[in-house]
Amino acid sequence: MNEMLGVARWGAPAAAVSLPSDVRDLLGAALGVSGPRPAASTAELPAVTLSETALERLRAACPVVSTGDEARLSHAAGKSTEDLLRLRAGRADDAPDAVARPATQQQVADLLAACSQLRVAVVPFGGGTSVVGGLAARREGFAGVLAVDLAALDRLVHLDRVSRTATFEAGVRAPRAEELLAAEGFTLGHFPQSFEYASLGGFAATRSSGQASAGYGRFDRMVVGLRAATPIGLLDAGRAPESAAGPDLRQLLLGSEGAFGVITELTVRVRPAPQARDYAGWSFPSFDAGADAVRALAQDGPLPTVLRLSDETETAINAATGGPQADGCLAVVGVEGTAEEVADRSAALGRRLTALGGTPLGAAPGEAWQAGRFRAPYLRDALLDEGAIAETLETATFWDRLPATYAAVRDALVRTLSSSGTPPLVLCHISHVYDSGASLYFTVVAAQAEDPVAQWRAAKAAAGDAIAASGATITHHHGVGRVHRPWYTREIGDVGVAALLGVKRALDPHGILNPGILLP
Amino acid sequence: MNEMLGVARWGAPAAAVSLPSDVRDLLGAALGVSGPRPAASTAELPAVTLSETALERLRAACPVVSTGDEARLSHAAGKSTEDLLRLRAGRADDAPDAVARPATQQQVADLLAACSQLRVAVVPFGGGTSVVGGLAARREGFAGVLAVDLAALDRLVHLDRVSRTATFEAGVRAPRAEELLAAEGFTLGHFPQSFEYASLGGFAATRSSGQASAGYGRFDRMVVGLRAATPIGLLDAGRAPESAAGPDLRQLLLGSEGAFGVITELTVRVRPAPQARDYAGWSFPSFDAGADAVRALAQDGPLPTVLRLSDETETAINAATGGPQADGCLAVVGVEGTAEEVADRSAALGRRLTALGGTPLGAAPGEAWQAGRFRAPYLRDALLDEGAIAETLETATFWDRLPATYAAVRDALVRTLSSSGTPPLVLCHISHVYDSGASLYFTVVAAQAEDPVAQWRAAKAAAGDAIAASGATITHHHGVGRVHRPWYTREIGDVGVAALLGVKRALDPHGILNPGILLP
Repeated sequence: MNEMLGVARWGAPAAAVSLPSDVRDLLGAALGVSGPRPAASTAELPAVTLSETALERLRAACPVVSTGDEARLSHAAGKSTEDLLRLRAGRADDAPDAVARPATQQQVADLLAACSQLRVAVVPFGGGTSVVGGLAARREGFAGVLAVDLAALDRLVHLDRVSRTATFEAGVRAPRAEELLAAEGFTLGHFPQSFEYASLGGFAATRSSGQASAGYGRFDRMVVGLRAATPIGLLDAGRAPESAAGPDLRQLLLGSEGAFGVITELTVRVRPAPQARDYAGWSFPSFDAGADAVRALAQDGPLPTVLRLSDETETAINAATGGPQADGCLAVVGVEGTAEEVADRSAALGRRLTALGGTPLGAAPGEAWQAGRFRAPYLRDALLDEGAIAETLETATFWDRLPATYAAVRDALVRTLSSSGTPPLVLCHISHVYDSGASLYFTVVAAQAEDPVAQWRAAKAAAGDAIAASGATITHHHGVGRVHRPWYTREIGDVGVAALLGVKRALDPHGILNPGILLP
Repeated sequence: MNEMLGVARWGAPAAAVSLPSDVRDLLGAALGVSGPRPAASTAELPAVTLSETALERLRAACPVVSTGDEARLSHAAGKSTEDLLRLRAGRADDAPDAVARPATQQQVADLLAACSQLRVAVVPFGGGTSVVGGLAARREGFAGVLAVDLAALDRLVHLDRVSRTATFEAGVRAPRAEELLAAEGFTLGHFPQSFEYASLGGFAATRSSGQASAGYGRFDRMVVGLRAATPIGLLDAGRAPESAAGPDLRQLLLGSEGAFGVITELTVRVRPAPQARDYAGWSFPSFDAGADAVRALAQDGPLPTVLRLSDETETAINAATGGPQADGCLAVVGVEGTAEEVADRSAALGRRLTALGGTPLGAAPGEAWQAGRFRAPYLRDALLDEGAIAETLETATFWDRLPATYAAVRDALVRTLSSSGTPPLVLCHISHVYDSGASLYFTVVAAQAEDPVAQWRAAKAAAGDAIAASGATITHHHGVGRVHRPWYTREIGDVGVAALLGVKRALDPHGILNPGILLP
């Protein structure tokens, strides 16, 4: 039995937020949330199954291997609501037996060789921010489970100012990467909700997309080169921005979630750090009207750096809980660049958005959004404390299917949670746009049922079925992990699964890499 | 013995060009080209090894299967200079035993099932424009070789005006696809040198990139969905523009050159047909200065639709042979879009290029380039007729390595061909730019040696070695085929090869798909 060490929450304890009393009142009145739930102060860790001989062999590959409770508990789960609920209930059954902290890329390779030999399952661990069960390897059939924490691989290896690329070790956390780049006048421009803790290797392994994706692109499109350690050797991909030399091996490792190898180094496009920023709020009479407008920007421009559109519910809830005031649907439109670029583009956006039926709300809503952009996971903790369940899920599809997917997912969540006696609030926004389609990001809040894990699983399954039935993808930027696997395998079909299992067998013949994650 | 049917040339006989007498004089004076070479008027086809029983089984899958000489000869090779030289010498040893022309995607799937059962090697055939030996399957170990010509799969299946995507059957030729789209007010915007004959499936299978890639993107980035028939079943990929649902399976099939499956359907991004065009010429004092300028546009904009920069030699040779007159290095800068966009962007480009040291040459060079944009392969035939050898090769790398790659490839070509007594002209241009790097496209002209195939192979090998040693990719947009395979396998390394062979074994367990192409 161990101290919980704050692992059942997001972020540093000092950054925790509490809910304003009017929000608590609203939760009670609207959702029937009945107040604080007790959480376990300790968690049960499974017994370590790795032998001393095995641990010695691992330590020969990488000197720092810990079997201490603190190390195990802090690598026991990701940060999905289900992960947090289980930890709050004192359950840490997915904890690894040991945690290795390699100091060099060679140590990662040596660990994989040792684990292959010992039949030890390997969970690559970056920032630990998975929300899809991506850190919970299958234990059956293995001598044990080793988390390989890449945090010490945090160097900027090379900055190429001419090509505007930066080569990083994959364990570097996003804020540190931005700090290292800022000192040289550059930015990566990747700011997902997990920004404060996530690592670049994790972004790559899960095909992350950040809040500024309209301007800087998805993470998978930023990667021009990568190096991965596999049980059969090193893979080095990317000799040019683009190539016709066969299938794109970078795109095979991106999204592979540790099942094919451990990404140890990444070369990413970087951009000059912006000198100016202009974030503004706009309102649209309806989600449909707003979606047409953001589609027009995505297809014909001008495209801002950040582009988000909340639906009516999200707009109203934000306004009712101290956020920006807006009628209809709120859009946040942010532009970054040189002072001249920002002035020109903001002016062009203003003309275009007005023509598209938008009403300008000025800088306040944009600045409010920017100030609170990483706040949601802290709010979730406060909601869980209060006896609510709160979680997000997301998808993407082509523009023509978007309205149907939106309606189907919303309906599935409302129906499932209402039928079990906990009618939810379902909020949605569009936050990643492409010329041919966009993402939908849903936030769900309801009163906790007796078994909140089962409650959420039922809602999540209904949403997943609705996504699949509407022809959309099961995940736009969270990844597959263990949670999305059933829908994922249906999405790519038998032939897709066979292709990826072919890669898996070739690179990881003993199947030690993140077993149970991504692939069946 | 058979009529050559024009297969040893590019394009329709009526479109053939002849060299002006001053060009012929220049070839003689500068390169020692000694005048017309005789070409065989007939070619020897290998005996058909497929049994009548096998042919019956194939015809049960797809009624149209021909073993006629004309069909076999017209599918015997691609359009590399080596292909043409061999055909001109009467050698058609890579001809398939038979040519199937499926009328439906289902017939393609049925053919693959039949060929798997019969151990017949399958060569998917689109436009037949491969310049890397991509249509010359290994025959050993198979009951025979079947070319699967997809020309009858040429329908526009669906146009989604909202998402701006078009779904085509993969055999559609590029001009027909543009014609179908133009009728609806759209364009694909993909105009490689092979445009007049190449198919969309071929673009996908080889990761083609067109002359307007700066504006419309590479073909692999246009594909949002694809369907491929494999011996184990159908693969259907792409439920959203982008997804975090595992590795990108589209990017695994793109560039797979028929080794993993036959692409039967593609969903591609389309754009509104441009209302206006403005193509202009610019000159820069040197290739280095011009490269810095195009890099500045690629990194900070504005980006035109077409952006090309010739080196000093290409500029001088073009000027001396009736092309645009320019000092130093000629750049072609083309802008397409609405009238307003074109006016705005052309003005912005004018200001920026002037600031970057460019001298405007007006519309004439841009229009001349546009008028002759698909002319090079016809000129090559005329050069071969005249006793010259003429071929192109290309690569791409990051900006910081580009000058070294340029020098190394040039030197390798000059050194190798000079040492065998046929000093070449080596021309080069940059025609595809990215923020982190660019392509280099070389054209080589020399007098034919006694054995021109061996002569070119030696030069090509030296260039390939120089590309690899400089850290660049062996091909930016021509593909791997049989010609680039040795450098390709070194480029992706043992682990990369193992990964792709893993896919191959899974999807094509009997190894019938394009054996010898792409993979060892």
